[in-house]
Amino acid sequence: MNKFHIIYGIHPLIEAIKEKQIIKKLFIKKEMNIKIGDNYKQLLSLSKKMNIPVHFVSKHRFDHDQLKYKNHQGVFAFLSPIKTFHIKNLLPIFYKQQKNPLLLVLDRITDVKNFGSIIRTAACAGVHSIIIPNKSTARINSDSIKTSSGALFKIPICKENNIQTTIRYLIQSGLKIISATEKSDVSWYKIDLSGPTAIILGNEENGISSKYLKLSSYKVKIPLSKHGISSLNVSVVCGILLYEVFRQRQLKIIPIPKANPE
Amino acid sequence: MNKFHIIYGIHPLIEAIKEKQIIKKLFIKKEMNIKIGDNYKQLLSLSKKMNIPVHFVSKHRFDHDQLKYKNHQGVFAFLSPIKTFHIKNLLPIFYKQQKNPLLLVLDRITDVKNFGSIIRTAACAGVHSIIIPNKSTARINSDSIKTSSGALFKIPICKENNIQTTIRYLIQSGLKIISATEKSDVSWYKIDLSGPTAIILGNEENGISSKYLKLSSYKVKIPLSKHGISSLNVSVVCGILLYEVFRQRQLKIIPIPKANPE
Repeated sequence: MNKFHIIYGIHPLIEAIKEKQIIKKLFIKKEMNIKIGDNYKQLLSLSKKMNIPVHFVSKHRFDHDQLKYKNHQGVFAFLSPIKTFHIKNLLPIFYKQQKNPLLLVLDRITDVKNFGSIIRTAACAGVHSIIIPNKSTARINSDSIKTSSGALFKIPICKENNIQTTIRYLIQSGLKIISATEKSDVSWYKIDLSGPTAIILGNEENGISSKYLKLSSYKVKIPLSKHGISSLNVSVVCGILLYEVFRQRQLKIIPIPKANPE
Repeated sequence: MNKFHIIYGIHPLIEAIKEKQIIKKLFIKKEMNIKIGDNYKQLLSLSKKMNIPVHFVSKHRFDHDQLKYKNHQGVFAFLSPIKTFHIKNLLPIFYKQQKNPLLLVLDRITDVKNFGSIIRTAACAGVHSIIIPNKSTARINSDSIKTSSGALFKIPICKENNIQTTIRYLIQSGLKIISATEKSDVSWYKIDLSGPTAIILGNEENGISSKYLKLSSYKVKIPLSKHGISSLNVSVVCGILLYEVFRQRQLKIIPIPKANPE
């Protein structure tokens, strides 16, 4: 990631400003051919309030490699990178704040759109932090910020060198580790997800590494109908699992029938 | 839609052949720079079996407007259009086959990626048919086929002139109409979805038309955490709702607490 990277789209920019991200300059296309809506007005008034320099530029400034063919809505900005964390520093804080931790571990999610969509869904479902590896992962950039609808500013992202060690730490800290995998016969709703939980989602092609599967408390699957489509999209799996956690925590019941490991 | 349209990507092509779609010609890039995997071999052997003419062509043939910048994996084909239906002709058949109908109604879903992703999820969750309007809807083309992972060949798509009349017909036919909308206080899991059900999903910007909301048996929402992200992606909402139907039908229980309309 460069020292300053590009962010585009009206809603992601509004979120970035609201979350007090450091924005160097905001660029707006002179010849706006979209209808000027409330969101656009909000972006301008927020920029003014936060003393962000606004430049009205010709459409040629949007020929940048990172903007061409993108739905930039006529706005972009240079932004300082997103701060990342380590879960060992965050988890004790969550417990101190009497939160019931809900974490996501992304095992080599490489598609930027999936990555952004997962983060957006996680923010909606109340995930406290998302753990990603240092390598083999979609980059935190303007595309993932756009797909996440700005949610990358809302959830702390933990970048960890060793995911295996991190999972062991989560287990020691009292979290149940749930792997979403087709290599299971247990339906996702049969597991008690009401306590501290970390959900692992795996690579789009190869699923979750076997070493993480071995460490998991439960492996759960989301069954597929006989139509024969090979798999659900990982960001849809993410939504189904996180909202099952939500449902169980709202109802404060253990699922029926009783949890039946593997 | 043209008489023949383009479809690309290895998996969508395999699905198309398996589903006996009429494929005019199959084009494969001479200079394949991807690893030749089992899927590629399966595509070749299926094409041979079905007597589909295969042409090995130079990469310039992939400069077509519908293929540029696409993840075509070095393969494309000309395909005859997908057949569409009318729900009045299908629903009696579902009942005759002793199916417990599960339908989706898409109210002006215009983003091709969302459309494809919804159809993929619907096929996984066992939806019997998807109803779309004649106008203001994402097109059934190579992009939606690719995003649907070939599922557009698996689920009958009904194109209807008048969605309002269609919803009235569904009600008369004994289906419960569920609208997914933020304009509700009822959580999605509190409604009994175990019987014949049609779920309406609305336009990405404006949600479901008020005239369809008025006809709905229940309006349900998927609550958002306090992170303040404005909404879930419609294809994720689709996954959460359809798998709640799946869960309830598997457990054969009425949700707890008892359904509490609006």
